[in-house]
Formats: sequence, C-alpha cells, structure tokens
Amino acid sequence: MTLNLGVIGTGAIGRDHIRRCSTTLSGARVAAVSDIDPVQARAAIAPFESEALLFETGEALIASPSVDAVLVTSWGPTHAAFVHAAIAAGKPVFCEKPLATTAADCLSIVKAEAATGKRLVQVGFMRPYDSGYRALRQVLRDNTLGTVLMIHAAHRNPTVGANYTTDMAITDTLIHELDVLRWLIEDDYVSAQVIFPRRSRHARADLRDPQIVLLETAKGIRIDVEIFVNCRYGYDIQCEIVGEEGIARLPEPSAVTLRHQARLGTPILTDWKDRFIAAYDVELQDFIDGVRDGALKGPSAWDGYAAAVAADACVLAQRTGAVEPIVLDRAAAGV
Amino acid sequence: MTLNLGVIGTGAIGRDHIRRCSTTLSGARVAAVSDIDPVQARAAIAPFESEALLFETGEALIASPSVDAVLVTSWGPTHAAFVHAAIAAGKPVFCEKPLATTAADCLSIVKAEAATGKRLVQVGFMRPYDSGYRALRQVLRDNTLGTVLMIHAAHRNPTVGANYTTDMAITDTLIHELDVLRWLIEDDYVSAQVIFPRRSRHARADLRDPQIVLLETAKGIRIDVEIFVNCRYGYDIQCEIVGEEGIARLPEPSAVTLRHQARLGTPILTDWKDRFIAAYDVELQDFIDGVRDGALKGPSAWDGYAAAVAADACVLAQRTGAVEPIVLDRAAAGV
Amino acid sequence: MTLNLGVIGTGAIGRDHIRRCSTTLSGARVAAVSDIDPVQARAAIAPFESEALLFETGEALIASPSVDAVLVTSWGPTHAAFVHAAIAAGKPVFCEKPLATTAADCLSIVKAEAATGKRLVQVGFMRPYDSGYRALRQVLRDNTLGTVLMIHAAHRNPTVGANYTTDMAITDTLIHELDVLRWLIEDDYVSAQVIFPRRSRHARADLRDPQIVLLETAKGIRIDVEIFVNCRYGYDIQCEIVGEEGIARLPEPSAVTLRHQARLGTPILTDWKDRFIAAYDVELQDFIDGVRDGALKGPSAWDGYAAAVAADACVLAQRTGAVEPIVLDRAAAGV
Amino acid sequence: MTLNLGVIGTGAIGRDHIRRCSTTLSGARVAAVSDIDPVQARAAIAPFESEALLFETGEALIASPSVDAVLVTSWGPTHAAFVHAAIAAGKPVFCEKPLATTAADCLSIVKAEAATGKRLVQVGFMRPYDSGYRALRQVLRDNTLGTVLMIHAAHRNPTVGANYTTDMAITDTLIHELDVLRWLIEDDYVSAQVIFPRRSRHARADLRDPQIVLLETAKGIRIDVEIFVNCRYGYDIQCEIVGEEGIARLPEPSAVTLRHQARLGTPILTDWKDRFIAAYDVELQDFIDGVRDGALKGPSAWDGYAAAVAADACVLAQRTGAVEPIVLDRAAAGV
Repeated sequence: MTLNLGVIGTGAIGRDHIRRCSTTLSGARVAAVSDIDPVQARAAIAPFESEALLFETGEALIASPSVDAVLVTSWGPTHAAFVHAAIAAGKPVFCEKPLATTAADCLSIVKAEAATGKRLVQVGFMRPYDSGYRALRQVLRDNTLGTVLMIHAAHRNPTVGANYTTDMAITDTLIHELDVLRWLIEDDYVSAQVIFPRRSRHARADLRDPQIVLLETAKGIRIDVEIFVNCRYGYDIQCEIVGEEGIARLPEPSAVTLRHQARLGTPILTDWKDRFIAAYDVELQDFIDGVRDGALKGPSAWDGYAAAVAADACVLAQRTGAVEPIVLDRAAAGV
Repeated sequence: MTLNLGVIGTGAIGRDHIRRCSTTLSGARVAAVSDIDPVQARAAIAPFESEALLFETGEALIASPSVDAVLVTSWGPTHAAFVHAAIAAGKPVFCEKPLATTAADCLSIVKAEAATGKRLVQVGFMRPYDSGYRALRQVLRDNTLGTVLMIHAAHRNPTVGANYTTDMAITDTLIHELDVLRWLIEDDYVSAQVIFPRRSRHARADLRDPQIVLLETAKGIRIDVEIFVNCRYGYDIQCEIVGEEGIARLPEPSAVTLRHQARLGTPILTDWKDRFIAAYDVELQDFIDGVRDGALKGPSAWDGYAAAVAADACVLAQRTGAVEPIVLDRAAAGV
Repeated sequence: MTLNLGVIGTGAIGRDHIRRCSTTLSGARVAAVSDIDPVQARAAIAPFESEALLFETGEALIASPSVDAVLVTSWGPTHAAFVHAAIAAGKPVFCEKPLATTAADCLSIVKAEAATGKRLVQVGFMRPYDSGYRALRQVLRDNTLGTVLMIHAAHRNPTVGANYTTDMAITDTLIHELDVLRWLIEDDYVSAQVIFPRRSRHARADLRDPQIVLLETAKGIRIDVEIFVNCRYGYDIQCEIVGEEGIARLPEPSAVTLRHQARLGTPILTDWKDRFIAAYDVELQDFIDGVRDGALKGPSAWDGYAAAVAADACVLAQRTGAVEPIVLDRAAAGV
Repeated sequence: MTLNLGVIGTGAIGRDHIRRCSTTLSGARVAAVSDIDPVQARAAIAPFESEALLFETGEALIASPSVDAVLVTSWGPTHAAFVHAAIAAGKPVFCEKPLATTAADCLSIVKAEAATGKRLVQVGFMRPYDSGYRALRQVLRDNTLGTVLMIHAAHRNPTVGANYTTDMAITDTLIHELDVLRWLIEDDYVSAQVIFPRRSRHARADLRDPQIVLLETAKGIRIDVEIFVNCRYGYDIQCEIVGEEGIARLPEPSAVTLRHQARLGTPILTDWKDRFIAAYDVELQDFIDGVRDGALKGPSAWDGYAAAVAADACVLAQRTGAVEPIVLDRAAAGV
C-alpha cells in the first residue's frame, strides 16, 4: 500500500520533501498539503500530484482520513503544536528540526508520545543517515577502535548570513554534532564549556567566530568541536574518533583527484546543501519504510529533547565561560 | 502514472532489479514476470507484488497490455530475441549486458530500432551512472584538463571462478571499460593490441592473467588498461585521464580513514557487487524516468554494438599479438 | 677551519651526536670527550677519532684550548652547570633538552648569556629543524592562511615505559609542542588548562592517559594538544593550523602507498627515533654552521626558559584542574 | 683521513658538487679543479677552498698525487676519456651521466675497469639514492608484493627548452627510469616499443610529446612509462609496481596539506631540481664513503652501459614503430 503523506509547510524544505517523495523515494505519495499561504501550497504540489488535497490548517490536514502520516516542515515555533496534534491523532509524524523551540516543549512531546505506548515521532536530524557517519558507526560497532576516549570534530561554513548570531553557532550549527555524536557513541553529555579563540576578521563585529565547544559524556569521553562559520575555504565537516586501539576519521566527500596548476588535490564543497544531499533521501525513505513496517527507527523525540538540553547548556556556557552541567530529566519523561 | 514493468528472467540480477523497482525506486512497479522456471519466477515476485502477472514466455509478457516496458535479465544468448520482440511491440526495453552475443546481432538490433524511428533500447552498462565516473566526465566537460591525450586504467578482481577464461578478460571484464571510456571521451576506438605480462602464480595455468590492453581512438588518444583478475588484494577500478593541462583520477570509493596497527589507510572493497551498487539504482531510475518522459538517455543499442565490436578486436588481438583494427559499420546501421 | 667540538656525556644521545659529527656532518670534528665513566667515553669516541682528548670532568673539557664549542649531552640535572661554565668560558654550547631542570635555572642562564653580550647557547629542540614543520612555517610566512586563530595538535606514542608518570606527559612529551608551536606562530602562551578524558585501559592505573592540554596565547590563539602515550597504533605527531583564510596540516612522514590485503594505505612509524631522525642532522649542522659564522640561529636559552615556564603551568594545571596563567619574566631576563 | 677530490668541469653541476662536498658532506674536500675555462674554475672553488689546486687539463688533475678521487662533471662527450684516464691511474671516479655518449664507449669503460680487477667507477644516476625509491625497493625486498608482474611509471615535466628533441625524451628523460627501474626489480630489459599518443598543443610542432615506452624484461615483467615533457601542471615522477600480492606506489614528495579556496590538497613541485635534491647529497656521500671504505656500491659502469643499450633500442623503436630487442654484450664485458 502506498503511504499517503500530508505535508505541513511548503517553504524550501517542504517543497524539497514533496519533490523527494514524488520523484525519488519509494512507497509514498504526497496526498495533502497545507500552508499559511494556500497559493504557495497549491504551487508546491501542482507539478507532482494533481489530486493532492489542500487544507487550510495543519490541524485539519492531520485530522483528514486521507492522510496516513505527517511531515512537519513549517516555521520552527509551530512544530510542537503540530507534533502534539499528530500524536493525539495517533499518526506518525516526521518533524524537521527543531522538534520544539524549548527543551521543556520537547520533553512535553516525549511524554505525550510515551503516553500512547507507541513510537510515532521522528525528528529531522539527517546526519545519522549520511553514509560517512554510518561507516564510522560501523567501525565503532566492529570494535576496531576499542573503547572510545575522545572525539575531535569541526563544523565549518565558508560564510553566514547577516542575521547569524553567536548563539546560533550552537542552536543552528552545533545542534547537528550534538545529535550525531551522541548517536555515534551511544552516550549522553554531562557538561559543556565554550572557548572563544581570536575572532576572525571575516566575522561581523558582534559575532564570536570561531568557537570551540568542549563536551564531556557520562562515560568520560571528551569531545572538542570547532565551530567556524566564516572559514572562507569551504563547507567542511570533520569528525575524528580516538579509541584505545586506534583512530577513525569521517570520510571526505568523494571527489575527483586533480593534478593541475601545480596542485594535487580535490575540490571542497562550498554549499552546505550539497554535503548531506543523499542523506535527506535516505532519511525520509527510512521514515516511510518505518511507518509502513510499524517500527520507526530514526532520531526520536527523546533524541530531539537530548539535543535541546545540551544546546541550552552550551548557550549558557557561552555566556558564563564556565563548565555547565547537562542534565536530562529521565524521570519526568518516564524513560 | 506508475510505469508497469515486465521482467524476463528471475535469476540473481532479475531478482535484484525486482527488489530495486519495488522498494527503492520511484515511479514504477513490477507488473509481470517470466522465467523458464515459473516456480522461481513466482518466488521472485511474491515478496513484493502480490498482483503481478506470471507469463510462461518472455514473448507473451512483452505482448501483454499490462506491460508498459520490459527488463531483459535472462541468460545472455536469449537477449537479442527478447529485445527484437520488444522493439517489434514498440515497447521500451532495458537489456542487461550483453545486448547480444555477437556484434552482428547487436547491429541487427540497432537497425531494427532505427527502423521504428524511436529510441526504445537501453543497454545495462552501469558505469556511466557511477557518481565517480560522472564527476570525472564533468571535469572533462568543464575543460579543466584541456584536450585528452591518454588514459591509464585498471580493472582488478581479487580472484575469479574456475571457468573464467582468457577471452573473458575482454568479454566479461574489459567490456565495462570499453563502454565507459568511450562515453567519457566521446570518441571511438580504432585499434587494439594485447600484451601478456608475466603470469601471476595465482592464475590457473591456462589463464593469461594479468593482461594489458592498448587502445587507440579516432582522435589519437592512447589508452592502456591493466586487467588483473587474480590481484588478491581487492576489487579495484582505476581510471586516470591525462590531458594537455592536467590529470584527473576516478575517486576511490568513500571510506573511513583508520589509524590502526601501524597503518594509516582505508579499506578496499573485495566484492565487486559493492563497488557500483549505487549505480544500479541510478541506472534503472534513469530508465524508468526516460520511459515516462519519452526520452531514453542511457547506453544505447549503438553503444552496445560499439562495445561488442571493440571486444571482438581485443579477443582477436589476444590471439595474434598484433595491432588489430576496430571498425564500426555506420553505413549498415544508418547512423 | 674545522670546528673542534667537545662532548660532555657519552650516553646514547652523546654517542649519536659523536657519530653524526664524525660521519655525516660537515665542518666539525669531535676533539674531546668527557663522561663520569671514562671507559665509556673512550669507547664512544674510539671508532671515530683516534686523536680525541679525554677529560675527567666537563669543566676541564670546557676550559681546554683544544675545544672550540661544547655539546652538553649528560644527565639532565647537570646541564645548567655545564652551560654556565661554557658561557663563562665564552664558548658556544649546544645543550640537549632540558636546558635546566627548573625555570629559575633556565632564567639564570638567559641572564648569564645576556651579560656576555653574545649569543652562545643553543637548546636541543629539534622539531624546528624538521622539514615538515619548516614547510608549515613557510606557509604561515607566505600568509596563505591569514591570521592564525587555532591549532589542533596531537602527540601520540604507541606505549611508554613503566616509570612514565602523569607529569611527564608535560615535561617529556608536550615540551616539544610547547617549543615548536611557539616557534611556528611567533607568539607566547598566557594560560594553560588540562582535561583528563576517560583513561585508556592500556595506561597503568596511576597514569592519566590520554590528556588534553588547552593553551591560550598573547594574541588569543587557542591551541589544543592531545597527548596520548598508549595509543597503540604508532608514533604519530599531528599539527593542524587554522587561519582566517584556510587550514594547513603538518605532512605525514613520506611513505610508500600500498594496496595490499584489502587495505589502501601507508605504514605509520612506531619508533619515535625514526620520526625526527633527519632533523637531528639538520639541527647539529645548523649549530656548527652558526658557530663558524659567529651567529647562532637555533632555539635559544630564552626559548628553553619559555618552554620551561609553560611546562610548569601545565603541570600545575594538571593538579588544579583550573586555568593557570603562564608568565615570562622579561624584566629579570633583560629581554 | 679526509678524501681529496679533484673536480673536472665547473659548470652548474660541477659547482653544485663543489658546494656539496665543502659545506654539507662529510669526509672529503675539493683539493683540485680543472675546466676549459680556468677563470671559471678558479671562481668556482674560491668561496670554499682557498688552497685547492687549479689544473689546466683534466688529465693533469687526474695524474696529480694531491688528488685521491675524481669527479667528472664536464661536457658529456668528454666523459669517456676522463673516466678511462682515471681508471688508468687507478683512481676512483664519479662520472655524471652519461658515462659515455655511445653504448660502445660505455662497454669499453666496463672492460677497462674489469681489467684492473677493481671497482673504480660510479655513474651519476641519483634516483637509487632517493628516499622514496629506496622505500619502494625495501617493500620489494620484504616481498610484500610477491613476484613483480608490471610497472606503470610516468615522467612529467611542466615544459622543456626549445632545443629538446623527440629522441631526448629517451636519452635525457627516460634514461633515469631505465636506470632506476632496472635497479628496483634487479632485472634486465629485453625489448622496447614506443607509442605516440595525440600530440599536446603545448609541444613544438617537431616534438612528439607525450610518448609511451613499453618495456619487457628477461623475467617477463611489462613496464609502461609515460613521458610527457609539456604537461604544464608540474614536475611529477610516478612509479607503481604491481606484484602478485599487491601494489606499491612511489611516495609523493612530502608537503603541507592545505584546505584553501575550496581545494584540499598539496603543492606539486614545478622545478625538477627540487625533486631529487636530497638524493644528490646521499649519492655523493655514498661515493665518498665507498672510496674511503674501498668498496663502491653505487651505479656501476655496467649499469651505465645497460642504460645506454636500452636507450639506443628505445630511440630505434621511436623510428621503426616496432618492438626492438635490447641485448647486453655480457661476453665482451667479461661479466
């Protein structure tokens, strides 16, 4: 049976997922859309599904019997309400990050989902679907490295927009590392510290860039993540895992090696959208397959909550300069 | 509209394509199957499409109004007849390699298709769908290398089965280079020479392994391809293009870099099936999209014929030790 | 004129320098030796210089008119006295690290040398003579990276002896990074912090291994150095410099690339002595040339003092867990 | 005892060796020089050895009791006579390539040396002294690759002078591969073939560039060498050895890895003089040590003869397009 998806929010990411479900993925179709701008919603679906239904509100879409599962790709502050509605309707929901804008709201979703006794929520963290990270995780599972002791990571953008602020280095940028590293090592963060190196002259005067975030996990693993969003040279994601027996490094994106003009090397991507483009396909196919199989396996509401709590501590650490604790409320969540 | 595919031949590659169309690709379903062993055909389709039709013969499948397009994945010697039947029925056909077992039969298909005035045939050469070769071709199209002068290539298998013969180094192994290199440089071969280096002790006594094939193209490009099917260390495909301004090399498969046991490096694949696994998906999706758009773009019957003619010359050169000409019969083909 | 060297201390490193001066380097000969064990001293010089003089004490050697310049390769705690004696005699002296066992004694040497108005002392830090670090420094001098913002470094040994203690991670291991990084960026350290990740099970129970040292410089550059002396896989020195315009990484040691047993890669050295072996030659030739030219250019007494002060702060930071200041006494040194 | 060298010919390479012996190497001094231009000879030695003797002829220099060993760095056509004179005088002689301008003259030197019963001649092939080739040879000696079956090599220059002719691709360029590959695999060539790919537009109209030389050895190893002297992008020497168990590749020159301007990579050398600069030091030190030890180990007169015979066959093969035999006259040489 083809899965009937309803998409709430037809901005860039929403349209991208509509295209993906319609032309690339298997087993689903977009049966319904909704947007605060119905003209945009209609334009988004028209090239792909002439018979899709248009709903005035996300709530109406969720309630429709024509919708089996929901994709929430609307404005961030609206996510939590739509996810709650989907949970209430007993329908699986894929929610782009953030799951909610506060850790408390994330926790509320965790609780609501737990109360249903079923797994219904997948959060749109795509890094665990990247083939490089998956290969890295396989190395860890094969125990080639022995026990993990340290991770050295970096998240570098060539440049950022004028409205990018110091805390967005955590909430928009580091958030991906907070999710994927936790998934890699199957461990939880217990503290965070932020160090501000000399500022790049390419950063705006009110932006601290680069930053270094130091994390500690429950098992004592130490993680350093360089965040550098005006690095100029390219979009570059690095991850090196140091274990008792050896070290593994995230693959560089596959590229042609050139010998040209006195240089031996490969191109570096400059547009972040190219870096994980294949991962989005795998991610959404996994959601579709998970719904059809009745067993979602991707990033959960709890994962979304854990990332949110860690991000909050990092933002606090930016301000205090101190080592800030990271505490998950397992009791409240009933997990 | 979902495309209804009919699959003729449900051996390993047929079953793989059935799975691919049913669980991974978009826009098509397997509506019909046929095999000389109907029990196997039924078992092949059962997990994916309960409503698929089972035909006793490939010809019947091709004739069925329930089938929009045909996949020929049967035993090689049967390919040509099924492709001719599909052409006669005016239905698009994807034929696994070889298109036919002789160059003359390939040419006959080219003529039959040309007589319909439509492009109907795609040959199952998957290398042009590999992301690495595509990146290499983009470098050529960007003219980064200037005019191409030479190609150094290698095709290495860790080992081969007991029934692998000296001429299969051409017809089963080199055939992929014959196709993809021609596609890369948009040029035709004019001669071939084969050199036999010292034999590896891991090759059976009656097998010449390794071999070096030297090709010349119409534009004067010189190509050397090492074929080494008992190389022991892994399945390894190399391609280096030397141009007037620089050199480009096919990417190595993406892999985690390890520092472990006094070695810095990456794993090498050992199973050929893993090397181009993603290319098979892209290839068949391109066929599906091409049929739906009414414009096939993949390897054509002419490409299949050109590879067959070049392979024949290489096999002859194995025996004579001389430089053998490669001549395409454009007049007969009407191209 | 051939330079007549006197060598004080004929243990492993002393004998190595005798061999080096006698069979590899240009412009000098070992004219005199001294050791607390005269039998060993005689045995050390015998294969190379039959006419070399043997002195009962280092002081007598220094005073001899047959000695133009002095190499101090004796037990660490004796270094300072011999260096002072050489300064007092107005003779150039190459002193293996440490220059002295305390920062105060290093400072005393700086003052004594300054009082002579001449540069007489070179400290045996060999990393600035390594071709890789020199290439890295050239990149900085070419300003390819723009202003330096961060350095990520690692110093890894496969294993250490039973008497290696937690503070030796600083005084024996990190000391090389403290010297060479300061030389690379031409900047001084202002603070240090030490973090202890999860301990490797290969480390003895009383040894904290690995460790991460965080340094800040006067210009605000942030440096992290992983020290991991039971890393198992090899002896591995890493240094990555992040600047405003790009990133440069210390070359891996040159090695044959192998495709073998399903692995593509290069060997990693396991013996530290092989890693900087060429640098020792360049270092000592530079001392010889510097003495003959009347202008020593290598690591100075001040460099030895600066490394000692930074090391003291790091050892303190190991104990306190806090950020410890690093303060050089420029006034006392008269620099 | 310091070895007294006499240098015949004070052009660029002669002056370079004078500097090398005077400031870098151990155990020798330049005691005498000679040149057809005595003013140049005097100027060449003046900065290094005020007491060196100046001779009007190479013969007089060779005859002088002040000279222990001879370096022949004069114009190629004069080499053979000076080498014969040194042999006649019983003095060790290091002769820059070519040993003689014809294979017959090389053979004459082999015979003259053999008649003395002593090893006296070293030919100035420096590649066997390159650390990369030595590492490659060690891999072969460790038998990591098993029996060698093929070699793929390339010799690329960014550009060449206006007087570089098609045959110089063999006599000036390939000659180094002819020497070093023979040394690597300890085998002799038995035939040569030359293929001319499409000409680069950067080559002058009368120069065939690139070229591919195919060599066969006595053991059946097949070697292909690409010679491309207008490759534009850099000076690049490649060597890949394919054995029964794996493949080894000559190391790239050590270089800083940069991430800069959307490129990840290393610089490629553009000046050939930088590529083997360290090898010249090792080569000449080995000659000095060999003379002092009474046992020369470097490239012999026979090696010079073997390279000359192979080069002659390659030049013939350029003209005939055929496979030309390579035959060494062992009987005449008495080896």
